[in-house]
Amino acid sequence: MPKNFAIIGVGGYIAPRHLQAIQDTGNRLLAAVDPKDSVGILDKYSYDVKFFTEIERFDRHLEKLRRGAESERIHFVSICSPNYLHDAHCRLALRVGADVICEKPLVINPWNFDALEELENETSHRIYTVLQLRVHPELIKLKESLQNANTKHEVQLTYITSRGPWYQVSWKGQNDKSGGVATNIGVHFFDLLLWLFGSMQGIKVYYSDDNRMSGFIELERANVKWFLSVDKNDLPESSKASNKTTFRSITVDGKEIEFSEGFTDLHTKVYQETLAGRGFGISDARPSIELTYKIRTAKISQKDSLVHPLLKK
Amino acid sequence: MPKNFAIIGVGGYIAPRHLQAIQDTGNRLLAAVDPKDSVGILDKYSYDVKFFTEIERFDRHLEKLRRGAESERIHFVSICSPNYLHDAHCRLALRVGADVICEKPLVINPWNFDALEELENETSHRIYTVLQLRVHPELIKLKESLQNANTKHEVQLTYITSRGPWYQVSWKGQNDKSGGVATNIGVHFFDLLLWLFGSMQGIKVYYSDDNRMSGFIELERANVKWFLSVDKNDLPESSKASNKTTFRSITVDGKEIEFSEGFTDLHTKVYQETLAGRGFGISDARPSIELTYKIRTAKISQKDSLVHPLLKK
Amino acid sequence: MPKNFAIIGVGGYIAPRHLQAIQDTGNRLLAAVDPKDSVGILDKYSYDVKFFTEIERFDRHLEKLRRGAESERIHFVSICSPNYLHDAHCRLALRVGADVICEKPLVINPWNFDALEELENETSHRIYTVLQLRVHPELIKLKESLQNANTKHEVQLTYITSRGPWYQVSWKGQNDKSGGVATNIGVHFFDLLLWLFGSMQGIKVYYSDDNRMSGFIELERANVKWFLSVDKNDLPESSKASNKTTFRSITVDGKEIEFSEGFTDLHTKVYQETLAGRGFGISDARPSIELTYKIRTAKISQKDSLVHPLLKK
Amino acid sequence: MPKNFAIIGVGGYIAPRHLQAIQDTGNRLLAAVDPKDSVGILDKYSYDVKFFTEIERFDRHLEKLRRGAESERIHFVSICSPNYLHDAHCRLALRVGADVICEKPLVINPWNFDALEELENETSHRIYTVLQLRVHPELIKLKESLQNANTKHEVQLTYITSRGPWYQVSWKGQNDKSGGVATNIGVHFFDLLLWLFGSMQGIKVYYSDDNRMSGFIELERANVKWFLSVDKNDLPESSKASNKTTFRSITVDGKEIEFSEGFTDLHTKVYQETLAGRGFGISDARPSIELTYKIRTAKISQKDSLVHPLLKK
Repeated sequence: MPKNFAIIGVGGYIAPRHLQAIQDTGNRLLAAVDPKDSVGILDKYSYDVKFFTEIERFDRHLEKLRRGAESERIHFVSICSPNYLHDAHCRLALRVGADVICEKPLVINPWNFDALEELENETSHRIYTVLQLRVHPELIKLKESLQNANTKHEVQLTYITSRGPWYQVSWKGQNDKSGGVATNIGVHFFDLLLWLFGSMQGIKVYYSDDNRMSGFIELERANVKWFLSVDKNDLPESSKASNKTTFRSITVDGKEIEFSEGFTDLHTKVYQETLAGRGFGISDARPSIELTYKIRTAKISQKDSLVHPLLKK
Repeated sequence: MPKNFAIIGVGGYIAPRHLQAIQDTGNRLLAAVDPKDSVGILDKYSYDVKFFTEIERFDRHLEKLRRGAESERIHFVSICSPNYLHDAHCRLALRVGADVICEKPLVINPWNFDALEELENETSHRIYTVLQLRVHPELIKLKESLQNANTKHEVQLTYITSRGPWYQVSWKGQNDKSGGVATNIGVHFFDLLLWLFGSMQGIKVYYSDDNRMSGFIELERANVKWFLSVDKNDLPESSKASNKTTFRSITVDGKEIEFSEGFTDLHTKVYQETLAGRGFGISDARPSIELTYKIRTAKISQKDSLVHPLLKK
Repeated sequence: MPKNFAIIGVGGYIAPRHLQAIQDTGNRLLAAVDPKDSVGILDKYSYDVKFFTEIERFDRHLEKLRRGAESERIHFVSICSPNYLHDAHCRLALRVGADVICEKPLVINPWNFDALEELENETSHRIYTVLQLRVHPELIKLKESLQNANTKHEVQLTYITSRGPWYQVSWKGQNDKSGGVATNIGVHFFDLLLWLFGSMQGIKVYYSDDNRMSGFIELERANVKWFLSVDKNDLPESSKASNKTTFRSITVDGKEIEFSEGFTDLHTKVYQETLAGRGFGISDARPSIELTYKIRTAKISQKDSLVHPLLKK
Repeated sequence: MPKNFAIIGVGGYIAPRHLQAIQDTGNRLLAAVDPKDSVGILDKYSYDVKFFTEIERFDRHLEKLRRGAESERIHFVSICSPNYLHDAHCRLALRVGADVICEKPLVINPWNFDALEELENETSHRIYTVLQLRVHPELIKLKESLQNANTKHEVQLTYITSRGPWYQVSWKGQNDKSGGVATNIGVHFFDLLLWLFGSMQGIKVYYSDDNRMSGFIELERANVKWFLSVDKNDLPESSKASNKTTFRSITVDGKEIEFSEGFTDLHTKVYQETLAGRGFGISDARPSIELTYKIRTAKISQKDSLVHPLLKK
């Protein structure tokens, strides 16, 4: 029997992947909410989605469904709202008797996990998040290949993805709403590195402004130099020359990890895994949230030998 | 030398066609405003667009550009805001010394044209609108073929385009913001018919609710039975059977007008024509706005022999 | 020990009476939320009120307090938001472990009571509402004096309270947000009549527009002709002559009920009663909500002998 | 003949003084706009005020009045919106052919004056602002008494006015919207000092955070040590002991300037003066805006002998 979904935040950038994943996994979308009413995207998936522009009216509708026929009850709420609202929207979903599939980052500040975990226990419902790199076939292979090694790897993470001025004007540019560059742009990669190389032993942050951050992380099995930016001026010349607007590179012991393909349907895979009982929960999300929180609040260190090459310039 | 554009309402459904047309015609977008900050779409076109979420700050920026270097002055403002704001945004553009390319309908109520025309005269700037069917090659041919005929044609217009519940929740579902079905969904076709068959002689409206309207129009050279709907239940069985969500048909003397192709780049054609001094101005837009206003405010007539076949059911 | 309060909707018209009542009853206000940030009113009562403009952040704060020290837990949430949000905000309060004191009308549509009652049972917390006329000394006396009588009384209710154009532009002018004139302006008086004269036997509605409604109600022990208006043109000449902007009259068997005094501190009395365990709950509020719902959705009757005199004109 | 007024920002803290001043000077309020719809305050003044929640619709209405009968034209627009919108709203007013009476600060950044001055010239309409201390009888006397002296005075300005947490959450707590403490809280006093003691010769800023700022200004005829705060903890013990929440003191050569009385109707006096052709225009406002801009953007200096006593602690 298909599961019934509702979605919070359907008018933004990432929602279409969730809508597609709901459809791809054979489930039904019954309700949606977004303060913005420009949500014609819904018509690509269903003409039977109740829509609300106010979270209170959405809550009323879900409460009504909860008290109605089992076939109409919402089983899952997908959350695509701005980062700083994720935990409140998770609570809303748990309280109306639904499980959650929440975009990353699940929360901005790690202490918000505690309240969510308690509410999971109180409600017997679960929160899952989207850590899609963990279901990427090439990266799964990489993890396996690294499993046996006992050496400490030298890793370099570089991610530059150009954003225009709108980015800083939007909630994504406000630290208290997005968590800043390390959280909003970097959390996927930090989660990947923790997953591949074990827990954090220590960090340094060498640089931080609204557009870029750079630092060093020692993990159990790797030393990581990282550089993240949303400023197109940080792109390597080779990218500029070929009009590319994103540069993404992870090297392990000097060797490039190839994972530029196979990105398109990762949300669907995450949904499949979650529905099959193998979703990523709070305990999976916690290490990368704790790491990005530490990075966000770290004092700036003097540059030393551990600095990322792009920062030497 | 390329023209400088600014755009009002860049986060909605129709904005991408304007962004594309600005790019296709070799011009530059310098500024954008939208109360919604989910406007990553801008990055597909340029990383140098100043973005604002408040119309007041956008106005300040355009005033600043107006007083700066000629090369940075805004020459055109493209308007993609909700219908009921079009005329206010036209005024804003004229006042900062720009011409306007405004989405349809230029205004909801015809008396707002008067203030706009006076402001055109005061500022020596012009307002153009997007009547893209008038630049459709097949329809231009049709107009030519009809030119010579002296007979009164029998025309039937049917346009059913499914919309989910979000439509009525959004501004498009509020009569005072969108003008209702006849204006929001129908104005293009009414403009086309006026352009093809001459001015309105009289109207009847047989049915009107939030989702559908139907009536009769006598034009100089045609009698028109029309039916417009956003309810998928109104689709003909053939469409439902083939999972089509839109049904569009114009017949002239029983013969189907074929114009399902060639829609994709009509905004670019409109921009080209406008930039070449052949844009559609207030006087072009006025007849269809007056007609849709009459339709919106008409008393409902008893069904008679002039009723559209779909309404007989 | 003082109770801790939080308030939803602190920037509007009615909030100051709740703030005053919280203070008058010796309790503490710890948190407030309002989408409008013009809430300097708070400084008149306390400089230690956490303030939020988003309901989600308010919810996070209350959840945090719930998990903290008992002395900081929120015991009561006062609700002064627009009518149509009352029930959603009641749910929020119950879920974070608080009781509720909610402005009238508790809900707009009676079926929303059912979900609230179930949630009361699930959470063991209670919802109270403000039916302040029931604590008015003169009206209590009146009720006692009527108790013994067995005759059916002839009652006439007239309430005309002038509002400028802003009223219809605000949420109060939107039927689905305020419930319209009968609910927003009339519910107090309908509750009073039900409380004084017993349950509703039948109704007629003779007139209804955005500014005024008039009808007839048969109660167990009274026949009631009523007229409600927010249009200053409906004021009796005597009021106009003396520049009064409100006319309020209830007559029982032709005799005027005097209750123009003693209005100022009724909210405080309601708070005192509620805190003493004698608050008005869902079952108290239900009859007037059911009555106003019936009035709002009734067919308009032809005028007959039961019509209010002001409507005869 | 009475002048017709419209007001922008009618739901906030300062609007009632403008509404009162419009009434006190025998003029008429015809239109108002505020994104917040809780504006029942209007009913205290008139039941005939068109109200809008969107600036675009307000603009449409004023344009309509401009083209209508002279008796209905808006002569003055009063501006009580958040500081950062003042200049945009001034432009709106000038463009529809009205003069302006704008709350302080007229602008946040001095370069915005240039565009306003040009627009004054283009439209032949004038912008006035509210520098109400300049019409305070005691302060006028003080100015006269200081006129003859040739010595350099030693001045100390202390203004501590408690605000709860809401202040920092509101636009007043955002530097780019309010200008920060020096601009939002201090601009009146800085204007007063410039008016009394002549133009600025130099400044130092010793301390600056969201809640307090302190520094030194050399004026032509005075050395000024100043301290501004919205934190109740900064109040002197004497104020705390007597439960006062505001402390205001200006001493000249050690002598306290008395001006705690006579504040209530200063807005009305400003309106009277303005209507009589003696309003304060851009050139009057400019020095204090330039000074507060300099203060806002100054580097923090090491404390020295010129520091305000409260900062020594």
